[in-house]
Formats: sequence, structure tokens, C-alpha cells
Amino acid sequence: MSSATGSGQQPRVVSGRQSELLGLLRDEGAMSRVALGERLELPRAKLTAELARLVDVGLVQVGGPAASRGGRRSTLVHLADDLRVLGVDVGATSVTVAVTDGRCEVLESRSEDCDVRSGPAQVLSRVAELADVVYAKASGRLIGAGIGLPGPVSFRDGMPVAPPIMPGWDRYPVRDELAGRWGCPVTVDNDVNAMALGERHAGVARSLEDLIFVKVGTGIGCGIVLGGKVYRGVAGTAGDIGHIRLDDFGPACACGEVGCLEAYFGGSALARDATTLARSGRSVALATALHDKGVLTAEDVGTAAAAGDFAAANLVREGGRRLGHVVASLVSFLNPGMVVIGGGVSRLGHSLLAEVRSAVYRRSLPLATGNLPIVLSELGELAGVTGAAWSATDRAFSPAG
Amino acid sequence: MSSATGSGQQPRVVSGRQSELLGLLRDEGAMSRVALGERLELPRAKLTAELARLVDVGLVQVGGPAASRGGRRSTLVHLADDLRVLGVDVGATSVTVAVTDGRCEVLESRSEDCDVRSGPAQVLSRVAELADVVYAKASGRLIGAGIGLPGPVSFRDGMPVAPPIMPGWDRYPVRDELAGRWGCPVTVDNDVNAMALGERHAGVARSLEDLIFVKVGTGIGCGIVLGGKVYRGVAGTAGDIGHIRLDDFGPACACGEVGCLEAYFGGSALARDATTLARSGRSVALATALHDKGVLTAEDVGTAAAAGDFAAANLVREGGRRLGHVVASLVSFLNPGMVVIGGGVSRLGHSLLAEVRSAVYRRSLPLATGNLPIVLSELGELAGVTGAAWSATDRAFSPAG
Repeated sequence: MSSATGSGQQPRVVSGRQSELLGLLRDEGAMSRVALGERLELPRAKLTAELARLVDVGLVQVGGPAASRGGRRSTLVHLADDLRVLGVDVGATSVTVAVTDGRCEVLESRSEDCDVRSGPAQVLSRVAELADVVYAKASGRLIGAGIGLPGPVSFRDGMPVAPPIMPGWDRYPVRDELAGRWGCPVTVDNDVNAMALGERHAGVARSLEDLIFVKVGTGIGCGIVLGGKVYRGVAGTAGDIGHIRLDDFGPACACGEVGCLEAYFGGSALARDATTLARSGRSVALATALHDKGVLTAEDVGTAAAAGDFAAANLVREGGRRLGHVVASLVSFLNPGMVVIGGGVSRLGHSLLAEVRSAVYRRSLPLATGNLPIVLSELGELAGVTGAAWSATDRAFSPAG
Repeated sequence: MSSATGSGQQPRVVSGRQSELLGLLRDEGAMSRVALGERLELPRAKLTAELARLVDVGLVQVGGPAASRGGRRSTLVHLADDLRVLGVDVGATSVTVAVTDGRCEVLESRSEDCDVRSGPAQVLSRVAELADVVYAKASGRLIGAGIGLPGPVSFRDGMPVAPPIMPGWDRYPVRDELAGRWGCPVTVDNDVNAMALGERHAGVARSLEDLIFVKVGTGIGCGIVLGGKVYRGVAGTAGDIGHIRLDDFGPACACGEVGCLEAYFGGSALARDATTLARSGRSVALATALHDKGVLTAEDVGTAAAAGDFAAANLVREGGRRLGHVVASLVSFLNPGMVVIGGGVSRLGHSLLAEVRSAVYRRSLPLATGNLPIVLSELGELAGVTGAAWSATDRAFSPAG
């Protein structure tokens, strides 16, 4: 990123009240002074002082008059138009970079294939290049950046910790490197946590306090939002459901164990099973795809299943049933308000959803499933970048930021 | 309970600060005025006013001088000696009633066999009789009562909701009936939530923020404490792990499904398997016990296993392995700070614990198990009453109370 943004002074938020004020403007958009004062229970003089300070540092703008509610018109307050946040979602095999406004609305984004196993130096330099591209299209004042990574992360230290599928990344100082490069505060989180936050902030789970987001991609993981916040567990590994064992004599998993959920239904398991079906002649559609492309992915299974190929549809059903068993246990255990299914394999779509729903509704306590929506991600591949940007604003708008 | 307590005016807590003050004195015991002011960041005059009010209503006493920290001696403040709380733990086959002081220390308790299926009228009248007995031994000013029930509970409405093993209890107004009888605020919770709170407040999990308490008794359930508070889920059913399905072709469960964890390792499953072993001649110890007593319970399995009976020990191992699989999934999912095993069957003791530990340490992510203690309940059969009393004080010490 150009030094023009990198060298900028970061606006300092100095009080908890300012922080609340910024959060409210981010989550609910422009508000009248009167409404702001009421929501924050701030006396008028105090509100005026806090707002003046935020206008001074360029985080907030005071616009035209708000719609009248009778009596004197109140002035409209909103986050400054030129605030910019970078959201980055590093997956196992792809990377997405977006630039958003202060409300975490994506203005520009780019995705490309990228193997996380090529190591932090190469991946982060691709991230930086993509960031330059999107930022050039929608530049402004960069106040923060957030990045999601496909493995366990120490949120506090801003780095991956012993990630199983990310050789070379263990304790790599991702936050500090990006913060140095971009000259703004950076938050680092697990990719699934970011997706869960994205759906909670701007997607299908808007305004829900308790939900789980199940990502089915190359790996399988789960983001847990409780009381509106990501629940990370004591060591930051909460949501690691890909290695729940379904069968002591199941297929070998990349983690070294056998019978893990991921060994049945992760992206590479699906590709493996699809290749077997294609070679055995049991699926014409998959055999054709293998012949044409030389290699099969989970997406080919979805395409074949959607086109009516029986064997491919069966793979989706079997996988969905297994995933459903695990989700049913989680629903019994946590009694969440919503289950969101996302990630690459979730493009298998409604037949996958039907299997998961059937398992959960049949197996969990009726009280826990009575009002439980089980739905597909609404933000799709922008869930991660949206959630990452949201974490970044949380940090940028906090007194410490 | 006698009308002497029943007709008493309840002391009113009127501010959030008073509530914090009472909570601190409950959780940490007597404190000097100076320490109190520092901990609550209260200016001296404000502290004096709040304390005066609490002394007035008889909730707090100001005692002798505290240990000097140099300079003028500060005065010691503590909860009034005569505060009393009733804690009740209704299990599937037993009931325990305790009276505690304001810090939830059990002063007197009584347990007896009691079948929850005999319905609310009969069970609650036994509860009231036992309460009279313990209260007579340690009377004072009753400020609240808490009760744990073996099924799903609406904490807000103070009643059980569609409990599977409690015929006649569905939406029975437990809170209002007991509050009327005892003339004090009453809280109603699930029994396992109460046990989890008990261990968290006064047992093995003291001061931990995130833990799960797994009860293995007639039923199997789980209490979840996150951030120091019971997590109940959106419909109050969080922790219902007894009906997680382990095998599509497993034994029938009381819930109507097959292969549930409880159908393998609940109290009645163990009694069933023990009887089969006794009759088949594969266990001499169990055959002898069956001959002597006419019926076998989970406790007989523990006794036989402890005495070296191979078949009985094998039952415990098999059950512990199955429980361990489920706990391993929960640990992967939630990454808690501690797992506490309690309830009647947990008296099977260390061989059960060994199996659970082995399954969890082998199957969950190393990061999640690195610092994870898996331990037996410390409070045993007083865990539930202690936690119930703790909920009751939370209510009694809150401004709404």
C-alpha cells in the first residue's frame, strides 16, 4: 500500500463513551443528535463535547437536519464518509481482500486462488498486492484492517498457533507485519470466527445474540457467537469440529487420526470420493468432468448432483447426514438461536441443507429446535472479509485503538 | 415453614452498587471499608451511604477493626450473620435440602430418596418438610431460596417446561408456589446448571470463568458456565447431552429414540446391563448382589468394579469410553477451562475418570487439552444445593429482588 496511507496518524478514540457512539453509528447508520443522546443516555452538553472531539479527529461528520419528530429539528450524525477498513479472508486454497467503509459495507473486493501452504511471506505479499488494487478503487483514510486465517489463532497475540494445515505459519507475527505495512491497527482471527461475525453483523443472522456458523470447505470448522460476541474458548480453539470422530474405523484424516468429520466431508474428502466414483464408472457426470479437467473438486460434485447424477447426489446426502449428526449434537449442547451453513462446500446448496435439517430436527430436543432456523450463509464469500472488517472497526473504535 | 419466617418483609436492595457490594462480600468474605471502596471504585462518602442503607435493612454488619495496612485502621464489613438461604436439589430419585448462610456455605442439609415421577404436589411437600427440619437447626432471616429440577426449566418463568422424565410437572408454577410458602424470592433452574454453579462458586472450579459440568446420574446432562455465568441457550435447554445419538442401531432410550448416550450409560442403563451380567453368570459379584437385594443399581456396579469384578469393571470402562467420546466433542467445540464430572454414577470414581480423560486427551486438539483439567466434583451431593443457593442470593442481592 502506498506510503500516503501507511504514514497517516491514526485517529485516537479516548473514552468509552466515544467508543459506544462510534459503535452505534456503525451498527445503525446515521442518527439524529437527539436519538444518539437518548440511546446512550448522555446529557446534551456531554454529547456535544464527545461529538466535537470525534469530528475533530475526523471519525464523525455532522450532516444536514434530521427528519423532524416535532419541535426543533435535530442534526444528523454519521461516520465520516472517507473512513476505510481492509478485510482479508485467507482460506486454505483462496484469498479474498476487500475494502469497506466505516460501517463495514464492502466497496471493492478481489478473490483469487492461493495455497495457504505456500507460507506467510508469499501469501501476505499477495494479500498486500490485492489490498493495493482494491484500495486504489476506493481510497480514503485507512483506520484499521482485519484478517481471518484457516487455523487456530491467538487473537491476543495476533498470530496463528500450531495450525495443522499451514506449514511455516506457526507463531508468524501476522498482525505486526501487516500493521507495519499498512500503518493501522490490525486484528487477526480464525476465518470461521470472522465469517460468523460477518453474518451476525450484516448477513442472515443480523441482530441475533447466539448462533453457530458451520463452515464446510477444505476444512470443517465452526464459529460460535454468544451474546453477540465471538466465543473463542480459553485457548482460542473453540469451534474445532472438523476433527470430531464419527467412527473408530473411518478414513484417515490429514490430522493423523481416523474417522474425523473432515475425513468424510471436507473438500478433499469429497474430491477423493468423487474421483473414485468417476473411475469406477458409477457416475457418468463425474467421469466426464474428470476426463475434461484431469482433476475433480467438491464443486464438481455439486454440479453433477444438481444435474441429477445419482452417485454425486448420494455423496452430498451422505456427507450432509454426517454433518447433520454433528450439528445435532452441537444444537443439543448449546441451544443456539440459529445455525448458518457456509464455506465452499456449502455451495452444494439446498440438498445439503435438507440433510442437515433432517438430522437436527429429528435428533435434538424439540424445545431446542422449535424456533431454530438452519440456513445457508447470505454473504457467501464476503462473510469472512465483512467479519474481519467488523473486528477491525471494533479495535479502531475502542479507547485502546 | 413456620409463619415466623414466611411473613417477614424482604430487605430491598435498591441500587446496582449495593448489589455489587453484596456480591463481593458473598464471594470474598469480610472486607475492610478501605478495600471495599477500592474494589468498587466508590468514593468514601458514597460507600458510607450505601453501607448505611444495607446495615439499615439488616443485610450487612460492620464489625471490629480490620488488620491495619499502615495509617488509620479501617473497619471490617461482612454479610449479616443471620442471613439464611434455602438450596434444594431435586434429582430423579432423590431430594436434598440445605440451609446456608449469606455466603452459600451449607449449615445443615438432609437427603432422602424421592421419586420425581410422584409429581409436584408430593415432591414439593417433602421439600417443604425437609426445609422445616434443616431450617429449625439453623434458623435466621430467610432472604431467598433456589431449587434445581431434573429437566428443562424456564428460568424466567420459574417452572419446568416439557420435562421428559417428570410427569405432572410441565409448566407447574414451582417458583410461585414455593415463594408463597416461604415468603421469599425463589429461583428455579435445571439441576445440572445448579451443580455447575456450585462447583464454580465453592468447589473445584472456584474462580474459573469457563467450564462444563457433566452429570452422570439417572440421566446425563451438562451445565455450561461461560464468563462466570450459566449459559442456558435461547430456549433454556443448553447442555442436553444425554440424547446425543452414538449409534443408529443402539439400545432404546426412555426419550423414544435409540442409541442415545443415556441409553448406554445413564443410571438405568447401567442397572439393566448389570442385571443381565448377573443373570448370565458372567459376574459373580453382581449375581450375589442381585440375590441379596433383589434389584441392582449403578452403585452396585461401582462396588463390584471396585472389588475387582472384571465384568463390572468392564461396564464402567465401556460407559466411560462412550461418555469420553461425547466429552471430547464438547471440548473440541467449546474449548472450556475445566471439565467436572459429577452426579450419582460419577461415584464409579477414578476408573470412570481415567476413561473419560483418555478419550478426551487422545481425541481433542492438543491446544484445547493442553491445560485442561478433567476432574471429579468436589462438592458431591452438595453441589446442587450450593449452586441453587448461589442463584438465590444473586436474585436476593439484585435491585429487582
